[in-house]
Amino acid sequence: MAGSPRRAASRRLQLPLLCLLLQGATAILFAVFVRYNHETDAALWRWGNHSNVDNEFYFRYPSFQDVHVMVFVGFGFLMAFLQRYGFSSLGFTFLLAAFALQWSTLVQGFLHSMHQGHIHVGVESMINADFCAGAVLISFGAVLGKTGPAQLLLMALLETVLFGINEFVLLSLLGVKDAGGSMTIHTFGAYFGLVLSRVLYRPQLEKSKHLQGSVYHSDLFAMIGTIFLWIFWPSFNSAPTTLGDGQHRTALNTYYSLTASTLGTFALSALVGEHGRLDMVHIQNAALAGGVVVGTAGEMMLTPFGALAAGFLAGTVSTLGYKFFTPILEAKFKVQDTCGVHNLHGMPGVLGALLGVLVAGLATHEAYGEGLDSVFPLVAAGQRTTASQAMHQLFGLFVTLTFASVGGGLGGLLLRLPFLGSPPDPQCYEDQVYWEVPGEHEDEAQGPLRAEEPDTRA
Amino acid sequence: MAGSPRRAASRRLQLPLLCLLLQGATAILFAVFVRYNHETDAALWRWGNHSNVDNEFYFRYPSFQDVHVMVFVGFGFLMAFLQRYGFSSLGFTFLLAAFALQWSTLVQGFLHSMHQGHIHVGVESMINADFCAGAVLISFGAVLGKTGPAQLLLMALLETVLFGINEFVLLSLLGVKDAGGSMTIHTFGAYFGLVLSRVLYRPQLEKSKHLQGSVYHSDLFAMIGTIFLWIFWPSFNSAPTTLGDGQHRTALNTYYSLTASTLGTFALSALVGEHGRLDMVHIQNAALAGGVVVGTAGEMMLTPFGALAAGFLAGTVSTLGYKFFTPILEAKFKVQDTCGVHNLHGMPGVLGALLGVLVAGLATHEAYGEGLDSVFPLVAAGQRTTASQAMHQLFGLFVTLTFASVGGGLGGLLLRLPFLGSPPDPQCYEDQVYWEVPGEHEDEAQGPLRAEEPDTRA
Amino acid sequence: MAGSPRRAASRRLQLPLLCLLLQGATAILFAVFVRYNHETDAALWRWGNHSNVDNEFYFRYPSFQDVHVMVFVGFGFLMAFLQRYGFSSLGFTFLLAAFALQWSTLVQGFLHSMHQGHIHVGVESMINADFCAGAVLISFGAVLGKTGPAQLLLMALLETVLFGINEFVLLSLLGVKDAGGSMTIHTFGAYFGLVLSRVLYRPQLEKSKHLQGSVYHSDLFAMIGTIFLWIFWPSFNSAPTTLGDGQHRTALNTYYSLTASTLGTFALSALVGEHGRLDMVHIQNAALAGGVVVGTAGEMMLTPFGALAAGFLAGTVSTLGYKFFTPILEAKFKVQDTCGVHNLHGMPGVLGALLGVLVAGLATHEAYGEGLDSVFPLVAAGQRTTASQAMHQLFGLFVTLTFASVGGGLGGLLLRLPFLGSPPDPQCYEDQVYWEVPGEHEDEAQGPLRAEEPDTRA
Repeated sequence: MAGSPRRAASRRLQLPLLCLLLQGATAILFAVFVRYNHETDAALWRWGNHSNVDNEFYFRYPSFQDVHVMVFVGFGFLMAFLQRYGFSSLGFTFLLAAFALQWSTLVQGFLHSMHQGHIHVGVESMINADFCAGAVLISFGAVLGKTGPAQLLLMALLETVLFGINEFVLLSLLGVKDAGGSMTIHTFGAYFGLVLSRVLYRPQLEKSKHLQGSVYHSDLFAMIGTIFLWIFWPSFNSAPTTLGDGQHRTALNTYYSLTASTLGTFALSALVGEHGRLDMVHIQNAALAGGVVVGTAGEMMLTPFGALAAGFLAGTVSTLGYKFFTPILEAKFKVQDTCGVHNLHGMPGVLGALLGVLVAGLATHEAYGEGLDSVFPLVAAGQRTTASQAMHQLFGLFVTLTFASVGGGLGGLLLRLPFLGSPPDPQCYEDQVYWEVPGEHEDEAQGPLRAEEPDTRA
Repeated sequence: MAGSPRRAASRRLQLPLLCLLLQGATAILFAVFVRYNHETDAALWRWGNHSNVDNEFYFRYPSFQDVHVMVFVGFGFLMAFLQRYGFSSLGFTFLLAAFALQWSTLVQGFLHSMHQGHIHVGVESMINADFCAGAVLISFGAVLGKTGPAQLLLMALLETVLFGINEFVLLSLLGVKDAGGSMTIHTFGAYFGLVLSRVLYRPQLEKSKHLQGSVYHSDLFAMIGTIFLWIFWPSFNSAPTTLGDGQHRTALNTYYSLTASTLGTFALSALVGEHGRLDMVHIQNAALAGGVVVGTAGEMMLTPFGALAAGFLAGTVSTLGYKFFTPILEAKFKVQDTCGVHNLHGMPGVLGALLGVLVAGLATHEAYGEGLDSVFPLVAAGQRTTASQAMHQLFGLFVTLTFASVGGGLGGLLLRLPFLGSPPDPQCYEDQVYWEVPGEHEDEAQGPLRAEEPDTRA
Repeated sequence: MAGSPRRAASRRLQLPLLCLLLQGATAILFAVFVRYNHETDAALWRWGNHSNVDNEFYFRYPSFQDVHVMVFVGFGFLMAFLQRYGFSSLGFTFLLAAFALQWSTLVQGFLHSMHQGHIHVGVESMINADFCAGAVLISFGAVLGKTGPAQLLLMALLETVLFGINEFVLLSLLGVKDAGGSMTIHTFGAYFGLVLSRVLYRPQLEKSKHLQGSVYHSDLFAMIGTIFLWIFWPSFNSAPTTLGDGQHRTALNTYYSLTASTLGTFALSALVGEHGRLDMVHIQNAALAGGVVVGTAGEMMLTPFGALAAGFLAGTVSTLGYKFFTPILEAKFKVQDTCGVHNLHGMPGVLGALLGVLVAGLATHEAYGEGLDSVFPLVAAGQRTTASQAMHQLFGLFVTLTFASVGGGLGGLLLRLPFLGSPPDPQCYEDQVYWEVPGEHEDEAQGPLRAEEPDTRA
């Protein structure tokens, strides 16, 4: 049931060796390169003659913790909707994100914050690493159930590098604004995962069709993920903005946008549902699209009305995507998108990027006043017009789509390496391939679901 | 099983149209009236010559997020105790609260924060809107399982308006103190819902008796709600107080009160339980009464002992209410109170209001010192004696009970409109009326609970 | 099924009386001794001529709330892995922690913060009381399923006192550093519980063997606990440090350590698992060992590399402990450790203490600069060398092991008092002894697990 002995033996060594190799490599690189920054180093902080309460910790750490909840609880439980893949959804989220945090600290550090040969770390690097982990988990959502942990770790290894480079090109080279990552996180993570899933296309996937859905309780577990993502999204989008009005405004815009995407999702889900019934898949996912769509423009003077309109549009488009486009994506484009990341992160991410183009293009000195230098510093410095900023934003979207597509393609080829032990079609979406599942050894005859009905008759 | 085709057709259009109508209306009102306040607007904030770290965001947003968790995770999961109503409990909580946040921003804005024809929004309006959503969800608890989403949205539409007016009368006209909302949130929400439930009385509700209880796992899901509510209640009561000692003291008092209501609940639950066994209904609900009972007095100089005594009393009264009064409420008063909101919010809310009367009446200049002007500004300004403040507090309770009762009655009449599609008695407490429930289409013969035992035998 | 009538009658009175007695006693002691401190008292705070935003609340309360989530959600759900003991795991966690918060406020207050005959309370005392509750819950993990609530309350009563004394000896008398409690919380709580479990050894415990494991859904509930513990552990270790760089650095070190313990745990779990499969027990528990192991050294200049190395070691040792040492502990040492607290808290706690010895011994004036006086004040003041500080740290470990062992032994003798109603062997790990379990009265013939398959056939 768990594959041939040889496969098992290979797996027994593969995952441990890969974990140890990756952990060893990052540990060595940490030893050589990573140092406390001036807010976390005992000696450096005191040199600065600061009051302890001015430490950046107090202004960033609560936001960091909210983001951290989203990455581990939010993504983890949202993907636990599958009836027999909860251990893997939660466990591999845990593994991938833990690795991505370390590796991204290095990649982002090399690209963004090398000083005198060292990477300096503190709460900002913690937030940035969590953002990269978020993108990796979005891609995981596209291939959920069809890839093993060793494959996923290699995906994370590659994706983290490309995420860092794409982010560097957008934020540092092009001067694009994207605080909440409509482009750098959602669009990048979604299309990376979708192209990768295309390369790993499985024509016989209906062999595991009986495991592709949810059961009643697994949908409730998934709602834990949905609700924590929904609640903390204002913190996500606002975590890396400049302090002050920018952070406050971003949180407020995201909060409004999410309320509207929720109403839009309920409206559309009932409208397109059989007998007018609501579909949990829509509620669990599309209601979150309002967070994605203001990932770029949330920092800008979007206005509360703009936030509502954008959120409503995103919830609507996302719901329609789940209903009508996901089947086409599989049938015509051979992209099997387990969690529908195209609907939740892909389309709303692109919409969010375009909204950023629009709102940047409409920016005026009157609307931003002295605040222009924190939202659009190059415009405030006279180096760019708002039209030019808008064009740069648009170009950033194309750069992101290019990096994501090429990266996803490379990733797919990498994951097709035969010794990586991809699960066979009938064992997709099944925890038992990778996990000791409780109850299964007591009475094998009753099959894998035996675990739900433990026998207590002495 | 899901009603006649005509009912289904009506439902298919009703909920979408109502959502779109309400979202459209709030969006237009937002466009006309809602503006960033001086802490969230890029231009206004910089005019103020502030340091960015002085933005109110850093002092209110962590409390806001805790409140936000309570509203969506806390109320949502607490109501997911029913065995076949988890999708509705979580989903309708989500829908109602999302709408209430928008609508209450407008209603509270019109009443409390209109400046030059505009409503100015920021983290304080976010907290206040979440408070109103909390009251709506309390009322939802009274009618849980017996009302459809269109009915509930209309309830929220009406209740939000009356909540705002009642709050305005108490806080602005009467100068009543009620930071954590023993009156404005708990008493109001509970009696609004109870009177509404009375008007919707169903004499044949035993037809769905088999669905009115919990199962083992649904009780564990409900505990997610309980525990998050318990943990974050100190943030709830302290979120809107003046900054400094007041916020600190309110959190501390609430923390103590909750520990005592927990001990009181365990003691009483075992005492009145069959064979001395504990009842999950009590633990899930009555243990929280300590948060409700200090919603008014928590900001005052209640003393740590006072917090323990109040919490213990509330936990005790609430447990006895579940055991002995809920059956009487249904049998004699024809009030069917699904979640027992009378025990968790009604009685402890009234007790909390009376505790506020007492503690306000006992206030002295010695005990509050210079802090008197933030807790009782009218007393500090010499416009009132403490006895007068106490009388105003008491009058506030009567105003609240009046608004709640009249409002709940009106709400009940509104929800009885026949085209709103209230679920028939045998389909109360059943998700399948409103949701696609997983597994049900595979093999209808096995009935609705089929979903819990998915067949994986190829 | 739930014991003889006499046992039930005894239980009916025992738990209520004990709760009322303990609550009455703490309430009286609160009335006599506990007062608001100068940050929470209306009069005292205003005397101080502070700005309200300087109140310690704003710098400690977000950390407190994260710790609070860990204690109630984290420990509670982590222990809910047992298939039929979820009500007890969550409920008794709730009861024990609520009592420990009150009682520890008193004990820690008497020992640490008596001023003019009064204990002064505020957010710091809230954090410290939660820390003590954490230690009590660790001990609870060792005896989970084998003790009733009255026994557990008595355990908490005793353990809280010894926890307070041990903490006082280490922190105040010996000048030991232990911010995150590798010694005072984890080592103490684990060995207290293990020795207590040894005294309560049940040779016939295999009679309840069928209830000692998890089922599929209960493992998912347990992951709620794991993930919230993992996420917020940086807040736990950093909550009581001095403000500024110390708090920031502790959070950062803990974050890195946890990522490495996660990778180490996945590697080892697959390596030692049958067919190379991962074991949920390891992932749920050993992945957290990285938080325990930097509980002492996390505040010090451990370096990011040091945090990774320590975390990896802890995850590895903990996983091996679950696989190989837990069976030996039961077979040879007659210690039945339900949750494996020896692996998660015991060994990693001791390792964390030794790591503290090492890092303290290696401290230099260059590395800490002016920050030395907040991390090692006695060294900065010239009263100790770093070698002496290291020796004191080591001595603190022995003191902790001594207090924990003697205390656990006494506790075990106390809990063996016959009238306390310990559950008989075949009813261990079974909620029904203490709780009304839903469904059981409808059709008793189908036995206790009936509750998972409610009958909805009219």
